[in-house]
Amino acid sequence: MSYPEFVKIVEVGPRDGLQNEKALIDLSHKVALVNQLADAGFNVVETGSFVSPKWVPQMADSSAVFTGIERKAGVTYSALTPNLKGFDAAIEAGADEVAIFGAASESFTHKNINCSIAESLERFAPVVAAAKAKGLKVRGYVSCVLGCPYEGEIAPAKVAEVSKALLDMGCYEISLGDTIGVGTPVKTEAMLNEVLKVVPLEKLAVHFHDTYGQALANILQALKMGIAVVDSAVAGLGGCPYAKGASGNVASEDVLYMLHGMGILTGVDLDKVIEAGDAITKALGKENQSKVAKAKLADC
Amino acid sequence: MSYPEFVKIVEVGPRDGLQNEKALIDLSHKVALVNQLADAGFNVVETGSFVSPKWVPQMADSSAVFTGIERKAGVTYSALTPNLKGFDAAIEAGADEVAIFGAASESFTHKNINCSIAESLERFAPVVAAAKAKGLKVRGYVSCVLGCPYEGEIAPAKVAEVSKALLDMGCYEISLGDTIGVGTPVKTEAMLNEVLKVVPLEKLAVHFHDTYGQALANILQALKMGIAVVDSAVAGLGGCPYAKGASGNVASEDVLYMLHGMGILTGVDLDKVIEAGDAITKALGKENQSKVAKAKLADC
Repeated sequence: MSYPEFVKIVEVGPRDGLQNEKALIDLSHKVALVNQLADAGFNVVETGSFVSPKWVPQMADSSAVFTGIERKAGVTYSALTPNLKGFDAAIEAGADEVAIFGAASESFTHKNINCSIAESLERFAPVVAAAKAKGLKVRGYVSCVLGCPYEGEIAPAKVAEVSKALLDMGCYEISLGDTIGVGTPVKTEAMLNEVLKVVPLEKLAVHFHDTYGQALANILQALKMGIAVVDSAVAGLGGCPYAKGASGNVASEDVLYMLHGMGILTGVDLDKVIEAGDAITKALGKENQSKVAKAKLADC
Repeated sequence: MSYPEFVKIVEVGPRDGLQNEKALIDLSHKVALVNQLADAGFNVVETGSFVSPKWVPQMADSSAVFTGIERKAGVTYSALTPNLKGFDAAIEAGADEVAIFGAASESFTHKNINCSIAESLERFAPVVAAAKAKGLKVRGYVSCVLGCPYEGEIAPAKVAEVSKALLDMGCYEISLGDTIGVGTPVKTEAMLNEVLKVVPLEKLAVHFHDTYGQALANILQALKMGIAVVDSAVAGLGGCPYAKGASGNVASEDVLYMLHGMGILTGVDLDKVIEAGDAITKALGKENQSKVAKAKLADC
């Protein structure tokens, strides 16, 4: 069993991390954050979301973020686009890549967007077709892969089914999300084994939340199975919408510390990520959720 | 590769967790904590330390803690005893088991107790001999196994050497401590492989600090290698003496969540541990460092 030599980190802080913040964040902070993350060496920075501002007011200025940032060569600035309207706006703003968002839980899909999983996937088809026509890559997210806040356990076969549907639709990468952070390594292994029956290893990414502190252990399990794409958010931005005060996205700093400590290359400068996380958490008046950042900023 | 079916958790919160607290903690809180932890099902609760009150004022009332608790059948109430004077006091107080404390770093040993590693081990020999004479088991700690705050990297061979010395002296279990939490899974694996050349698997325990968020990933690695004894502290009590605000001991709740989620038995009731951690952190006015506790107490 050997680990990947290089792991691609998809930095989701500016989108997945900030989207649930109640107080509107100044555009300048968002732009600075994306610039700092690109400068730190991330190859992919999820920069914004083109959804209805009624549902996600914090992302209403995503166009302005895209036009405000300095583009760094080699960096993919991606955007979440749930429909054609959002896709068109993302293209106009200059997104390099788009993402669509499915779930492995029927209850979650119903509660979130009031339709079945199958219907939700159908709605994404025109987005994928439009992206293909423009030569843009589409990433597919699958949420609730290790548990659902409404129905609890999720069958690995269901995760595999939704992942395969997104792959067949044309997604180049499938990001498997433990949305509520309840997964542990044995369940992670079982779920991944099921998905690997229908999706090639090199097309899989993992997206763990650290709500129960399990994210790095689960990422380690995924790495042992050869997965080489990991989503994370600087400073662990995001929190858990289902538990006030609990953490959400795993912190990029903590992931990078583990990977680098294991001799795995990422191309990312940890110190610069810590600076970016320190700046945005101070701007938000939030606690930094990265243990590495806390220790390093305390001069441990 | 298979995981252990049962993992013994050595709950070190009342000693390793509380010893660095500046403000003196009321005896009643300490007694209540030990009682709650024993009631939760831990087989071993490190209850106190018989060291000079000049060096560790917080542990000055360890005798009173031992005499104040209600003894639960089947629970081992252990104590740290660096010398014969401490050993005699521990026996008088009714400790079921004692522990001695070595380090794999010469600089750390010099800074801490002003002698070489070899000299420090010699000082423990009379304690082990006295314990044997009384039929008491002795646990041996090795600190700095994955890094030292003064000299940085530690050679795995040095860890093996100190572990073997403690084993030869008569310790029944060797607990390998990543005192500053800098370890990552590949280094953990290399260190354990070296120690396993000279110490049998069933005599090893791991003691990870979560200062850089790596503890559960490292524990997972140790479990994969068959290690079945893990040290942890309720609510992640303890902090890092080398970084204000950073975390120290891995939280028992987070370890238990992972183990139970992996189908590994521990005999410990997680909900009761969360209650104990909530009570002591409230009593101390400290933030609970367990992510599981935070999520569960927020009703995630």
